[in-house]
Amino acid sequence: MATTNQQKFPDVQGGGSLILAWQIKNKTVLVVGGGEVAAGRILNVLNADASVIVVCPSSGLNAEVRHRIDGNEVTHIDRVFEPADLETLPPSNAPPDMVLVAIDDPAASTQVWRLCKEHRIAANIADVPSECDFYFGSVHRDGPLQIMVSTNGKGPRLAASIRKWIGNQLPAGVGNAIERVGELRVKLRKMVPDAADGPKRMRWMTKVSDAYSWDDMCALADEDMDNLLKFYLSGKVPELHVLKAMRGGKAPEDLDVFDGSFGFSVVA
Amino acid sequence: MATTNQQKFPDVQGGGSLILAWQIKNKTVLVVGGGEVAAGRILNVLNADASVIVVCPSSGLNAEVRHRIDGNEVTHIDRVFEPADLETLPPSNAPPDMVLVAIDDPAASTQVWRLCKEHRIAANIADVPSECDFYFGSVHRDGPLQIMVSTNGKGPRLAASIRKWIGNQLPAGVGNAIERVGELRVKLRKMVPDAADGPKRMRWMTKVSDAYSWDDMCALADEDMDNLLKFYLSGKVPELHVLKAMRGGKAPEDLDVFDGSFGFSVVA
Repeated sequence: MATTNQQKFPDVQGGGSLILAWQIKNKTVLVVGGGEVAAGRILNVLNADASVIVVCPSSGLNAEVRHRIDGNEVTHIDRVFEPADLETLPPSNAPPDMVLVAIDDPAASTQVWRLCKEHRIAANIADVPSECDFYFGSVHRDGPLQIMVSTNGKGPRLAASIRKWIGNQLPAGVGNAIERVGELRVKLRKMVPDAADGPKRMRWMTKVSDAYSWDDMCALADEDMDNLLKFYLSGKVPELHVLKAMRGGKAPEDLDVFDGSFGFSVVA
Repeated sequence: MATTNQQKFPDVQGGGSLILAWQIKNKTVLVVGGGEVAAGRILNVLNADASVIVVCPSSGLNAEVRHRIDGNEVTHIDRVFEPADLETLPPSNAPPDMVLVAIDDPAASTQVWRLCKEHRIAANIADVPSECDFYFGSVHRDGPLQIMVSTNGKGPRLAASIRKWIGNQLPAGVGNAIERVGELRVKLRKMVPDAADGPKRMRWMTKVSDAYSWDDMCALADEDMDNLLKFYLSGKVPELHVLKAMRGGKAPEDLDVFDGSFGFSVVA
């Protein structure tokens, strides 16, 4: 039988969504409505540091949305939506970057959707999949770690239970471990700021990520991170017990555990 | 000490992204560049059923991108990007809905980014976080199930290893189980199409999701699903062995396993 030497590439698996981490820090999100669904949307976008404006008559606000308004976490416009809201919103009199609609009025919702499309503003009309540029999913959060589960509309209930299951399976402290790795990356970039060192920095960070377990990473103190950085120039990553032995200002060459070569790697 | 009766609402946890399932089915995504990063982006958006246009001189195409072009999976424009590409693109002469840039030319990249912002087109410039409306993450895919892991830039390597770890922990066949639940939902909506039945449909589907394990769900045949639907009117969900006993056209009341009341629930 003839065999082909053709290189294999991944087959396309259609039917999925494009799952993205949208950046809305300091961007303006307009939430139309103030009920329970709106409250969930508001928390979602506040967790991503958006500047949030809620348009809803006071009479329609639920307790959670009222709480966000009273705590100055969001700006409140006490009336129903007006088309001009898509052109000028306080404080900057600019159009919103994103619009989330959660009102019990299909005709009014559709009107907002059409206006958003005319203005090329990304929008989600709750419970109307055909009037959504994007869907929300079930998100597990642990500090910098976010895990989003989507079943692409096949089973929202299952998505939530899979999300909870993953949250329970994950080792405790994984969010902390990621925070530690992030701090190390920032310290390394301060120490070796040159862009030309980027690939070397990335290789070394990869070695670090592979060398320690999540639990080990959580246990690293500031002092340990500073000591770890001393190994960067050699391109090596010490075993954890070496870092522990260096605590209190000991240099690697003063340690019994040190094998004589400055810096040695636990990773090939 | 005084205690307050104030209702507790979730605290805002800033610093996250807004993780969204973007819907780009039949929407036009313009990919600028044809190297390895572009190849990854192209696969991402093809998996979400986008219509993809790649702008890149033939000389700059890597083997995977060439493979997508030869297989008519994407449309190829054999030249460098031109600003007019953001206004009229074949075949519809409309602007793209999304632009992904993956070229080794920071100045040209920045120019595309600025033009996208003028045209209000969502864009991602690879490796330039400040020139991105959104980031990509590490996504596990199993049929309709998508799980996205983001460390919000703190540890991309860790994100990939957590994604792999989750993929290994998940029970085999979970994607199939979700597919089954989706089919059941479609059949139920055909059987009881009235919008007014929405809440009852949703309650029953929740009971179904809670009643069977993922493995059970995978094993349900078409016949089992049709039999399961016979229990909808009673609002109950039968145990799995009842469905199995009904195979071959037996009615519930003919079964030894049947307790006399039509339909009974394994969920309170």
